[in-house]
Amino acid sequence: MKPKAVIFDLFGTLLDIASLATAAGKFTRDPAALVATWREKQLAYAFAATIMGRYEDFDALTDRALSFAAQRHGLDMGDRAWEALGAEWERVRPFVDVPAALTLLRERGYTCGVLTNGTPKTAAAALASAGLTAEIETTLSVDSVRVYKPDRRVYDLATTHYGVPASELVFVTANGWDATGAAEFGLHVIWCNRAQAPAETFGAAPAAVVSTLTEIPALLDA
Amino acid sequence: MKPKAVIFDLFGTLLDIASLATAAGKFTRDPAALVATWREKQLAYAFAATIMGRYEDFDALTDRALSFAAQRHGLDMGDRAWEALGAEWERVRPFVDVPAALTLLRERGYTCGVLTNGTPKTAAAALASAGLTAEIETTLSVDSVRVYKPDRRVYDLATTHYGVPASELVFVTANGWDATGAAEFGLHVIWCNRAQAPAETFGAAPAAVVSTLTEIPALLDA
Repeated sequence: MKPKAVIFDLFGTLLDIASLATAAGKFTRDPAALVATWREKQLAYAFAATIMGRYEDFDALTDRALSFAAQRHGLDMGDRAWEALGAEWERVRPFVDVPAALTLLRERGYTCGVLTNGTPKTAAAALASAGLTAEIETTLSVDSVRVYKPDRRVYDLATTHYGVPASELVFVTANGWDATGAAEFGLHVIWCNRAQAPAETFGAAPAAVVSTLTEIPALLDA
Repeated sequence: MKPKAVIFDLFGTLLDIASLATAAGKFTRDPAALVATWREKQLAYAFAATIMGRYEDFDALTDRALSFAAQRHGLDMGDRAWEALGAEWERVRPFVDVPAALTLLRERGYTCGVLTNGTPKTAAAALASAGLTAEIETTLSVDSVRVYKPDRRVYDLATTHYGVPASELVFVTANGWDATGAAEFGLHVIWCNRAQAPAETFGAAPAAVVSTLTEIPALLDA
């Protein structure tokens, strides 16, 4: 297929949340556990905010989730340390397959975009820090509709921006619930199953499953 | 305060989901891990169903979540075994503090109800199996509004049923996200912090926190 654009989820798909453990290591001897709780709670609050109809932006929820995670892991971090650790979302490292995959897609004439739960500010900073700004034509953020994925209004940002039906847009995500939500909406979904997780058993199935983003150019050319 | 009714969440608050491990022990050497994944995914699917606007009832989501959990834990259960294990939600055991707490509340003239994500059928069977049917005046299920907690429409079932403002109803739950959701709606929430978890850092705070349900009668009389 020749899609109008190939749109990527940002955190967990292009950028590796686990890389926050480096910065978190200054505060705890088990930074991976802290980061796992932090991410889990960040998403739980995004879902809760959407269901309750009480939007706060992703930076605010990230800070709230860190506060919860610190308590869960028995850490007493001062306000300044929190701020510094929260700001690390602007410096999350890209997965190793990302630069090559985006370069291959650009060389073959595909337009690449991002659709993220993150705020425009944090998403732009993180893309710049990862050296990916030039590869991404547009970054669409849930902040303009004030609900989080997998709400249909979020995926509709992509169809509205590109002015084509959902089936003409490829959406790539490593998050299973994001893959089923986007597939329910009608996007052509490629699930990058980085965690080697079982397939989700609720919601529409993705059109394709890959284990690394560098498989995608050949998949689209086929 | 003298509330019009004291309304309890069912699964996790009156009934102990961990007790499913007994039945799950026939299929795996680590039944607690299977049950933990099962419950986590059951809730994740309830949240996703609500956000995607694609309702399926809780029995269906419970079966889907079990299918996912079995794969995650490398179990190959036949269809019949699945059905038998799924049906165990009708026989989840009550927490040890429940009979005494409900009896104390009844003796002091409080009306008790249930507000649950579960289906009417499974909730009724589980209450009967736990010997609690006579203590519960009404069981309200999300199935009539086709969205899950913490959607406001669920909590509104209670105000509609009892015909009073939310502030005149006590809601008791052990789930942090349920406590904040109900408090956002305006119910007088008592969070029974069975898991000794940190307080949630997003959403309205509960009016009170207890560690066991038997603390509640004295709390309401005060």
